[in-house]
Amino acid sequence: MNPEGGAAAQPGSTSSDAHLREDSVSSERVFNGNFLHVQRDIVRLPDGAQASREYILHPGAVMIVPLLDDGRLLLERQFRFPMGRVMLEFPAGKLDAGEAPLRCAQRELIEETGYHAAEWAHAGVLHNAIAYSDEGIEIFFARGLTPGRQALDDGEFIELQAFTVAEVDAMCQDGRITDAKTLIGLLWLQRWQAGAWALKWVAAAQE
Amino acid sequence: MNPEGGAAAQPGSTSSDAHLREDSVSSERVFNGNFLHVQRDIVRLPDGAQASREYILHPGAVMIVPLLDDGRLLLERQFRFPMGRVMLEFPAGKLDAGEAPLRCAQRELIEETGYHAAEWAHAGVLHNAIAYSDEGIEIFFARGLTPGRQALDDGEFIELQAFTVAEVDAMCQDGRITDAKTLIGLLWLQRWQAGAWALKWVAAAQE
Repeated sequence: MNPEGGAAAQPGSTSSDAHLREDSVSSERVFNGNFLHVQRDIVRLPDGAQASREYILHPGAVMIVPLLDDGRLLLERQFRFPMGRVMLEFPAGKLDAGEAPLRCAQRELIEETGYHAAEWAHAGVLHNAIAYSDEGIEIFFARGLTPGRQALDDGEFIELQAFTVAEVDAMCQDGRITDAKTLIGLLWLQRWQAGAWALKWVAAAQE
Repeated sequence: MNPEGGAAAQPGSTSSDAHLREDSVSSERVFNGNFLHVQRDIVRLPDGAQASREYILHPGAVMIVPLLDDGRLLLERQFRFPMGRVMLEFPAGKLDAGEAPLRCAQRELIEETGYHAAEWAHAGVLHNAIAYSDEGIEIFFARGLTPGRQALDDGEFIELQAFTVAEVDAMCQDGRITDAKTLIGLLWLQRWQAGAWALKWVAAAQE
């Protein structure tokens, strides 16, 4: 994610991208919040001019598409303060420092929903705010779910609801679901169910 | 988008959501950048405790899925500094103050790609960072495209590329495309092409 870090080797960039590339001249932390951290870099543009780039430093996150044995999907209703309302979304959470994404996904699913999953699959990654955040969200699927007890963080209030795939599809179409990661979870689910995109399932690590 | 603004009337929230709802006790601007603005609210949680919420104030944005007459899709390659690399994505841009989303979509498509579209359809909206930004991205489709001249902003460097739907699908599967709005554009395109999600086309307004 680090703009300093070997961009040429990453997908999407090639060595012929000099006509598009921006290089950092200087970098400074301009806001340190409790939750948000803002970095400002002065960059050299492809034409030699300079510009400033402000962006959020984010530790990265995971999301989980939880498949219940009856074919329904487990979603969460949670009040999202920047939106001013309750949003319907797949479970998700931020990576702790040094935490592996699969481990984070297993931890968040248990904490937020109480469910343990017998099998996991990593689908891919999404970048949700490429103009102003380095956040990447790793996408996981979970199945073989057995219920248990939620262990929410202080200040976290989450209601669980299960829907059929057709219900989720309808809500993504008519605007009842607008959360980006949840829409992308539906894309992955539909492409996997169509046999077009593969998921490689692994057994959950023993706790 | 404003957390103060009548949340109960918005989709996803109901009058029975008091057990999830957070209410603002106080609100202050804690960072005013050139580009990013961070607000911090103290909120009252459903259990009566207080917590702080930091979030980006964003004017909102549009994205466009441009359908070329030969069936291919028009995408952009652009260096995204927070990612440290070139990203492949559908055209998009921020709303100017007071600008209608369709008008913004028409302006951004012409500025970034040079293409005029004869017909437009509004698909829906996505919220890309609901934990820390009030940004909503209105999703548009454009067809009947005729090429013209790009009019990029200062400091904007964009390369255009056209791909078949199958090529875009493959790149979304294998990680060459990870931009959230672009993945959601593919979801809308595939559901529309399957006859499952409707688009209502309108003729472009005369300039």
